[in-house]
Amino acid sequence: MKAEIITIGDELLIGQVVDTNSAFIATKLNEAGIHVCQITSVSDNKEHIVEALNNAVQRADIVLMTGGLGPTNDDITKLTLCGYFNVGLRFDQEAYKDVEYMFKIRGREVSEVNRKQAELPENCVALHNKNGTAPGMWFDVNDKVYISMPGVPYEMKALMEDEVIPKLKERFTLPVIVHKNILTIGIGESVLAEKITAWEASLAQDNIKLAYLPSIGMVRLRLSTSGADKNTLEEKVNRKIEELKTLVGEYIFGYENDTLEVIVGKLLKENKQTLSLAESCTGGYISHLVTLAPGSSSYYKGSIVAYSYEIKTLELGVDEEVLNQRGAVSQEVVEKMASSVRKKFHTDYSLAVSGIAGPDGGTPEKPVGTVWIALATPTKVFSKKYQFANNRMRNIQMTANTALNLLRKEILMNVK
Amino acid sequence: MKAEIITIGDELLIGQVVDTNSAFIATKLNEAGIHVCQITSVSDNKEHIVEALNNAVQRADIVLMTGGLGPTNDDITKLTLCGYFNVGLRFDQEAYKDVEYMFKIRGREVSEVNRKQAELPENCVALHNKNGTAPGMWFDVNDKVYISMPGVPYEMKALMEDEVIPKLKERFTLPVIVHKNILTIGIGESVLAEKITAWEASLAQDNIKLAYLPSIGMVRLRLSTSGADKNTLEEKVNRKIEELKTLVGEYIFGYENDTLEVIVGKLLKENKQTLSLAESCTGGYISHLVTLAPGSSSYYKGSIVAYSYEIKTLELGVDEEVLNQRGAVSQEVVEKMASSVRKKFHTDYSLAVSGIAGPDGGTPEKPVGTVWIALATPTKVFSKKYQFANNRMRNIQMTANTALNLLRKEILMNVK
Repeated sequence: MKAEIITIGDELLIGQVVDTNSAFIATKLNEAGIHVCQITSVSDNKEHIVEALNNAVQRADIVLMTGGLGPTNDDITKLTLCGYFNVGLRFDQEAYKDVEYMFKIRGREVSEVNRKQAELPENCVALHNKNGTAPGMWFDVNDKVYISMPGVPYEMKALMEDEVIPKLKERFTLPVIVHKNILTIGIGESVLAEKITAWEASLAQDNIKLAYLPSIGMVRLRLSTSGADKNTLEEKVNRKIEELKTLVGEYIFGYENDTLEVIVGKLLKENKQTLSLAESCTGGYISHLVTLAPGSSSYYKGSIVAYSYEIKTLELGVDEEVLNQRGAVSQEVVEKMASSVRKKFHTDYSLAVSGIAGPDGGTPEKPVGTVWIALATPTKVFSKKYQFANNRMRNIQMTANTALNLLRKEILMNVK
Repeated sequence: MKAEIITIGDELLIGQVVDTNSAFIATKLNEAGIHVCQITSVSDNKEHIVEALNNAVQRADIVLMTGGLGPTNDDITKLTLCGYFNVGLRFDQEAYKDVEYMFKIRGREVSEVNRKQAELPENCVALHNKNGTAPGMWFDVNDKVYISMPGVPYEMKALMEDEVIPKLKERFTLPVIVHKNILTIGIGESVLAEKITAWEASLAQDNIKLAYLPSIGMVRLRLSTSGADKNTLEEKVNRKIEELKTLVGEYIFGYENDTLEVIVGKLLKENKQTLSLAESCTGGYISHLVTLAPGSSSYYKGSIVAYSYEIKTLELGVDEEVLNQRGAVSQEVVEKMASSVRKKFHTDYSLAVSGIAGPDGGTPEKPVGTVWIALATPTKVFSKKYQFANNRMRNIQMTANTALNLLRKEILMNVK
């Protein structure tokens, strides 16, 4: 089965917005066994959208569009589709209920402009958009399926996962594709590749493909294979994952859509243990990650973000003299931060970080990217020094992931 | 002058890599007054590349390609272009010197595979690639210009800036394009559109186009126009921005690439004022935003993330009885949080937030998305209740942006 993606919006063609929607949609289609032939970005221009549609449908069975569904005048996708299919608009009661609901929870009345969001081309089926007022649209015309979604990424993502992919699986007979993701942390892509060279070579026999997908301090390994029977494929892939565990098990922290913060949260919850944090250079980012996990209030009590010397002294009892002599980015300071917040917040574990995120603040002895991470446990306090790179946001993310991984490994060791 | 961009590579169509090259190229072309009609991503497949080229050149004067120039067998762009133009390969001595140099600085000999990097289609001019072994290629055929560049972003970027844009400016007489962005917060896209209907209609007279680009709690308005003289165009657009200010000035927080956290930081710095935070439902996210701005340590002292009742009581002096009677998401609690952290951290301003981010924890009186935001200033403490939606991450972001905007408006009012 072949698909094409058309992303619509002037902002894409002037380079103001990077088209991240296409990669997301392409990933989801590929997982479902649908091959993407082409991705096309066009402006909010009727003739050009129609031309792109005409070309796409010559090559593909399914055409997915994003963008141009807002309530304002520059959004013309809906009327363009009416013209393309030669149909008028109808008022969709179900879609209007969704619009009303979106406004109701914000305590507002539906404006005239937004009432129009429920007007849809006569020949489409509305797809429920749980995060916005513009419904998705599904057209099934002359054996081709056309799908139109809003361009706002989180609206599109929910529509793809909850509505589009299930409907495509119902509508077409798709081959069985099995993907499994193994998530590693604390090992670089090339070192990892060297450690698993022989295992990687053995995958071909089983018709399994491997992709390395690196992100901040992590590498995702994706195994993919296709065939007739899902169970057989899964067994084959699972066998290979068991082999992989014996090679690099210590670096594997999760599978599929696991995130480090959710995995750490599960471990804390299972062991009925609690966490607090003292952050300096990460400025609240680790707390943010921890609380991204719904239900984190059962194991996370809180944090002190001590960005200034004053707060480190006042709130975490760091000695002023030590601060002045050793600097905030030092073993003494970060260990004191960890043990103080642990005592103050009455938690089992406490992480503390202090470093130089950049771009300024580096010195020859402590260049940008120097970070100390400490962990206080019921029995000890210890810390490690790291040297990351020179990008501020990347240093913050690397520090957060490294700190959470330190905690993960400590909990696992104490459980054993 | 019209251009199209074709990005070539299987990794784009399976969603493994987000195409960031296109946005960069489009930005550079737009700045040079070249209009981008379409961006097309295709796989490493000869027929499909030729089809994309044929289509692009019907609409545009300039076609820019990236990708498929590596030395390995899956890179087929160069041979495809030979076929397309019906020419053979020639050995380019200048390009070979570049290849030799790239290997020399790595202390290696040029391999046979890499020697081929200097073989170029007979009808092209080589463009010097200072960061890699694959030269860029410039074809000028039947009044159309075709440019091929490597897909590695930092190689492509240097080629665009140092070679392609200067050559395009020489080759074509280009118009001037002016874009201006106005950033608003605290007003929805549709309400904003209603307030500026007449102003929007008046833009056509001046040949100015308007786009609405919404994000979390914000709407970016982009004005674009083109003509002969840059100053005249800028004056025309600036006049319209002045008119816009009289209509919705209270919602405008910045221009172009400003971010709310940087604007708030600038205001604090200018007025020599300091900030601390007490976060509950945002779990450190506001602190993270504030510290994303380099140099934030000059106005931001720190935060208490009080996720549990215990920490709200212990660290922020919230009365236990009030917590139990009114709940953590209440005016009394959030105002106490703000005034306590302000006193404790000795800052001029303190923001505090408490809410129900979801997905769980909602009640009929306080559904998911209910958020209280308080601001403590040198003279008062006040708070507001908001009702956001039901997506956890979005509620966190909406709360953060709304809180920072509350602070921004308060600082501005006190300055007046």
